[in-house]
Amino acid sequence: MARLVLKFGGTSVGDIARIRKVARLVKSQRDEGHEIAVVVSAMSGETNKLVAMAREMAAVPNLREYDAIISTGEQVTVGLLALALQEIGVAAQSFLGWQIPLRTDAQHSNAWIEEVAGEKLSALMQKGTVPVIAGFQGIGPDGSVTTLGRGGSDTTAVAVAAAVKADQCDIYTDVEGVFTTDPRIVETARKLDKISYEEMLELASQGAKVLQTRSVEIAMRYRVRVQVLSSFKSERGTFVVDEGEIMDAKNVSGLAYSKDDAKIQVVGIPHQTGAAAAIFGPLTEANINVDMIVQNVGDSGKANIAFTVPKVDMERSVKILRERQATIGFSDASSDPNVVKVSVVGLGMRNHAGVAQTMFQTLSAKGINIQVISTSEIKISVLIAAEYLELALRALHSAYGLDAEAKAAAA
Amino acid sequence: MARLVLKFGGTSVGDIARIRKVARLVKSQRDEGHEIAVVVSAMSGETNKLVAMAREMAAVPNLREYDAIISTGEQVTVGLLALALQEIGVAAQSFLGWQIPLRTDAQHSNAWIEEVAGEKLSALMQKGTVPVIAGFQGIGPDGSVTTLGRGGSDTTAVAVAAAVKADQCDIYTDVEGVFTTDPRIVETARKLDKISYEEMLELASQGAKVLQTRSVEIAMRYRVRVQVLSSFKSERGTFVVDEGEIMDAKNVSGLAYSKDDAKIQVVGIPHQTGAAAAIFGPLTEANINVDMIVQNVGDSGKANIAFTVPKVDMERSVKILRERQATIGFSDASSDPNVVKVSVVGLGMRNHAGVAQTMFQTLSAKGINIQVISTSEIKISVLIAAEYLELALRALHSAYGLDAEAKAAAA
Repeated sequence: MARLVLKFGGTSVGDIARIRKVARLVKSQRDEGHEIAVVVSAMSGETNKLVAMAREMAAVPNLREYDAIISTGEQVTVGLLALALQEIGVAAQSFLGWQIPLRTDAQHSNAWIEEVAGEKLSALMQKGTVPVIAGFQGIGPDGSVTTLGRGGSDTTAVAVAAAVKADQCDIYTDVEGVFTTDPRIVETARKLDKISYEEMLELASQGAKVLQTRSVEIAMRYRVRVQVLSSFKSERGTFVVDEGEIMDAKNVSGLAYSKDDAKIQVVGIPHQTGAAAAIFGPLTEANINVDMIVQNVGDSGKANIAFTVPKVDMERSVKILRERQATIGFSDASSDPNVVKVSVVGLGMRNHAGVAQTMFQTLSAKGINIQVISTSEIKISVLIAAEYLELALRALHSAYGLDAEAKAAAA
Repeated sequence: MARLVLKFGGTSVGDIARIRKVARLVKSQRDEGHEIAVVVSAMSGETNKLVAMAREMAAVPNLREYDAIISTGEQVTVGLLALALQEIGVAAQSFLGWQIPLRTDAQHSNAWIEEVAGEKLSALMQKGTVPVIAGFQGIGPDGSVTTLGRGGSDTTAVAVAAAVKADQCDIYTDVEGVFTTDPRIVETARKLDKISYEEMLELASQGAKVLQTRSVEIAMRYRVRVQVLSSFKSERGTFVVDEGEIMDAKNVSGLAYSKDDAKIQVVGIPHQTGAAAAIFGPLTEANINVDMIVQNVGDSGKANIAFTVPKVDMERSVKILRERQATIGFSDASSDPNVVKVSVVGLGMRNHAGVAQTMFQTLSAKGINIQVISTSEIKISVLIAAEYLELALRALHSAYGLDAEAKAAAA
């Protein structure tokens, strides 16, 4: 017997028939003797409809009212799923964010969870009643409804799992688990059995869309075992766990990519103290998030700096720099949106040299130029021209032995 | 400057354009210097859609979950109206039942209001912010969402008006006010300027659908001045007020009718003590509400009893009686759904004889047979064959001088 939190996304609860299917799945888990709580999203399409109505009323809506409106989708789903469970003989009770309460900060439409009261939920679970919890929503410090941002229901599920000290949090979704890389691009991508919190966090923040970054952070902080699995196939998914559980840490566990960045290049900067500050200071003030940075000194003794910003901030960044061209004294600033960031992630990198070298050699052999590099303890990211994305992913996937293993497993 | 609570029904907030119109109306009232709170229903059709989904999931849904689902319609409207007000420069903040809080008993889907906290609302109104309050919903003793039943938003509005000590509660609706009778039947029906709580209560409970009975009860208990008026015409409506405000109490203020009752006739009852108890006891036990009753002794020395029950309970009532025919000893029990109850209501009845006599004579002159009669201090109701409804209403409307006054007013 285990204590489980199950989370179902919008597609899994998209209509009455699917909600009934989810109810049967919950019942089968409960009938195996588990204590269950469920977290659900709004029926697919509902939140978008509510967002459209709010934006029709006000192009830049007050976010307190916006949250009150867009949180109603989940309220409908929890009521319907509780009814569906009761219809098949499973005691169930719906919970809205404020009823738990799930307390957040005051950042409407992008709130952070501060505290989840687990007592009421635990007590119900213990006596066999299934709490059916509205994902994505909470209650702010002033008693208003808050929402957690895109993918917030994953975060709700993991935070609830931490609060009720669940043995596991199962995230049911429309993919079968976490893959070595995007299977739509690399045919030989395979589903991972296990991945560490740290790796999952790097993959999520580098563009793998299977779990929201914040949900992984909470899982890591509270050591919540998370399983990502398909609500349409009854197969084991991928477990996101403590690295101690991963015996044979691979050099590289997976590859991620992101098309959300653009490159800014500033050339001919006088090589003097404070030049970098003069460039990045105004961007920070304008709330523009600079990610990868490379600086080098050219033949002329002047420096060039290349860096990435979110694509949506590209034109604004160039404008800000050009306005300060005279002060900073650079000769030109240009931008390029046709870039993509490719990242290799793996715990084993810490102990194995040569991961970066393999990356550089593989890309070089395919004639792919690396424009910017950045690294962390368990991740190496490179910025390359967008047109090389698929070629780079496939070559790296082979070079790190990720698809070779898939063949071995199938043999 | 006055403190006002304005209530808008589902038709008045049926789409984005209409919500914008409501916002302009609220602004115009605020610009006149009034302190305003607004109560709104769900956009028309929304609650029915939610009810249909809940009933598709469970034919007899758990009412706690049912309430959680069907209360979301109002939540969307309050958010949208708050946004609409902000867009035209009016400070506004939405309130759900639990945020006020508006406390009710535990009777889900038909809850009674127990207490409305006026402090937060009053404080906002005082500083010029418009609270936009979700009608129809409250919070039960266990912290779950409750709903107040059909027309519950009227009740919310009046209860909020009492809680914030409003000078007036304006109920905007799709009719222009309270009429002497149904203008769809009697062309000469006219809008009343004022009507007392007691009269309104009798009219509402006798089938006039302009205000929910409970809302009138609360208005009467807390002496809330209520105005019923059209949200589509900018005209004075009907004021529902303390009878002290009504100087020239008419003998009869209005006529109401109800098609919701059926007649049950039990004949040949042994004239002995306890016969009435033997008949009505089992019906009361079965939760069937008996309304009008008439008993008479026939030539044979046996008694006949006729009474009314809600039409939906008619067949069940007859079945219950027939099962006990031997015990009670009556000779036959029959039922008739083709009846209608017509009521005349007026404060002046207390002091003026002849109101009943006028009714009986008028109906008799038209050849209409009165099957059952019941009276209260300010009301006389008669049960007649349904086919005479229009004829009876028109004749009584004239007989009590209700339409003659309308002509005088127009002259």
